[in-house]
Amino acid sequence: MLILGLDPGLGTTGWGLIRAEGNRLSHIANGRLKTDAKAPLPRRLAHLDMQLAALIADRAPDAAAVEEVFVNANPQSTLKLGQARGVVICAAARSGIDVGEYAARLVKKAVVGVGNADKTQVHAMVARLLPGVRIDGADAADALAVAICHAHHLASARAVLR
Amino acid sequence: MLILGLDPGLGTTGWGLIRAEGNRLSHIANGRLKTDAKAPLPRRLAHLDMQLAALIADRAPDAAAVEEVFVNANPQSTLKLGQARGVVICAAARSGIDVGEYAARLVKKAVVGVGNADKTQVHAMVARLLPGVRIDGADAADALAVAICHAHHLASARAVLR
Repeated sequence: MLILGLDPGLGTTGWGLIRAEGNRLSHIANGRLKTDAKAPLPRRLAHLDMQLAALIADRAPDAAAVEEVFVNANPQSTLKLGQARGVVICAAARSGIDVGEYAARLVKKAVVGVGNADKTQVHAMVARLLPGVRIDGADAADALAVAICHAHHLASARAVLR
Repeated sequence: MLILGLDPGLGTTGWGLIRAEGNRLSHIANGRLKTDAKAPLPRRLAHLDMQLAALIADRAPDAAAVEEVFVNANPQSTLKLGQARGVVICAAARSGIDVGEYAARLVKKAVVGVGNADKTQVHAMVARLLPGVRIDGADAADALAVAICHAHHLASARAVLR
């Protein structure tokens, strides 16, 4: 099963693709989708949508996952993030794949083992859980982390159902 | 020239289509795109996107316009609105039409003549400016208002360029 983790943002959306076979995880690819900060908002959103649709068509993931948003104190930032996040979630859903949404605490717990781990610990554990991975920056690391969380969630759901 | 005004929302997105010939405006259609409040977020966003893409394919507007967002005090509401707004703006941009964005004050000024008009005045003036219109609720009225604002803006841009 291929799982695409996504860390949405208007300027940079991190993505990470992993394979989950039962409890075994392996890294496939990760990267960043960028939009031009100087372009008008509609063009940036359409460009983000286009890049993600192409990535999904190319890699054919079975599922996608995003982290629940920690709502920013700055309402303008929240609006901007919300717009990018809407486009990202919509692009995945439009292509027919389910999108899981996980609280930050659950992602940290799945990756590090504790819900209050810091970013550095999360990124270090992502690298340990996916041997050989070269991570394309913090956004891609966050995307891989939520993909790992989704894989754990599916594995335990299967364990319960068995 | 056909102008599609949009008032984005996750539950209800108002839309209003007008024809602008120089300074003459006429109403073509208006309505609401709805999503099921009980469905998960990804499905709601994809449904909104699908309905709007179908509307644009059907009506073939030359331009679209949205109102700038009055950022809500509640960050969760802002995030939710942002997600729907991102999908709406992206759907229009993806289909190749420009999307104008106008401050609420400009919309009121274009429709009523003053920037501090209230909703009731705006809706009454929309009905007067578009004879024979039957408006499908407040969201569609807001959508028609921003379409009218975009038409005025284009007309004055032409006037300047002439």
